[in-house]
Amino acid sequence: MDIKEAGLCEGISEVIVTTQSASGVPNAAPIGILSREDNYFVSLYRGSQTISNVLEAKKLAANVTEDAVLFVNAAFEILSSDYYSLFHGFHVLKEANSWILFECECVEERVESFLFQIVPIAVEINMMRVRAINRGLNAVIEAAVLATRYDIIETESEKEELTSMIARYADIVDKCGGQREKEAMRSLTDKI
Amino acid sequence: MDIKEAGLCEGISEVIVTTQSASGVPNAAPIGILSREDNYFVSLYRGSQTISNVLEAKKLAANVTEDAVLFVNAAFEILSSDYYSLFHGFHVLKEANSWILFECECVEERVESFLFQIVPIAVEINMMRVRAINRGLNAVIEAAVLATRYDIIETESEKEELTSMIARYADIVDKCGGQREKEAMRSLTDKI
Repeated sequence: MDIKEAGLCEGISEVIVTTQSASGVPNAAPIGILSREDNYFVSLYRGSQTISNVLEAKKLAANVTEDAVLFVNAAFEILSSDYYSLFHGFHVLKEANSWILFECECVEERVESFLFQIVPIAVEINMMRVRAINRGLNAVIEAAVLATRYDIIETESEKEELTSMIARYADIVDKCGGQREKEAMRSLTDKI
Repeated sequence: MDIKEAGLCEGISEVIVTTQSASGVPNAAPIGILSREDNYFVSLYRGSQTISNVLEAKKLAANVTEDAVLFVNAAFEILSSDYYSLFHGFHVLKEANSWILFECECVEERVESFLFQIVPIAVEINMMRVRAINRGLNAVIEAAVLATRYDIIETESEKEELTSMIARYADIVDKCGGQREKEAMRSLTDKI
């Protein structure tokens, strides 16, 4: 089971993590998966639906995608059931390029987060492709990382700095992005 | 001939453009290719080896790759002949995921650049894959875009701002990148 073939790279891979509660209600959120010497780890913030589901079901799925809209929707909305299909009985995103199902074990409890070591138990590749680097896509991801911090930061000056950096990324999307990246950025700026 | 299959996306695709002089000496440089309603354009700065070659040979090849080291080397070094192979008699980069050979017609002469409309005449896909988004890769590309401007900007305050932004991208590479991204970033910071 070569999960590198399924798209997880050295360092941190930005994917959409799907989870489900014990009663089977799905959730999706953009999360980074850390690869270190062929071991995989994920840090989950306390209070999130993702961590609540992972503590219940001890599983998560990594959905590898380059769709900017999917990232922004998963970050700021509850995805409808139309987005999901089942892989080994577990909720995954229909449109993802690949799915990797992991078992999760908590290896460290921190003040604000839990660190899990995750072990792959099933992999499926849905679509392989070639795609050139698009700075618009990159800018949407960076803006989304910043935007998810917006409600956490406290001072006005920090909020201003963050807003001006998001505006800079919006300019890159405007110049370099395609329709999906532009739609994602509009959606993101509407949220904050 | 579906060049979207070969990885060129809506908006601007960041690729490595290879060209060759009339006598067949190759050159490589990271350049953005603009796609607008299935027409393709590239803006080339006066004084570059790329424009000199394109004016001579009326051709260029887009090499689609996600290799951070290749981007940085093509931006700041003259690539040795080992990097190249031939595609329809034209120099391309051996390691690229796909090649698209274009004919070039100058459609606008500007003060600092020429705008070319480019028409695909041959396409080859070498490797399809799935790859998760890596913020480290994105950060190398953004840092490289900034670094290539370093010698153009004139005031000390602009240079300082640019250096501090590159340092911010270096932090992202350090946190999120794999070995290739870290090697590329070290190489980039050595140049400036």
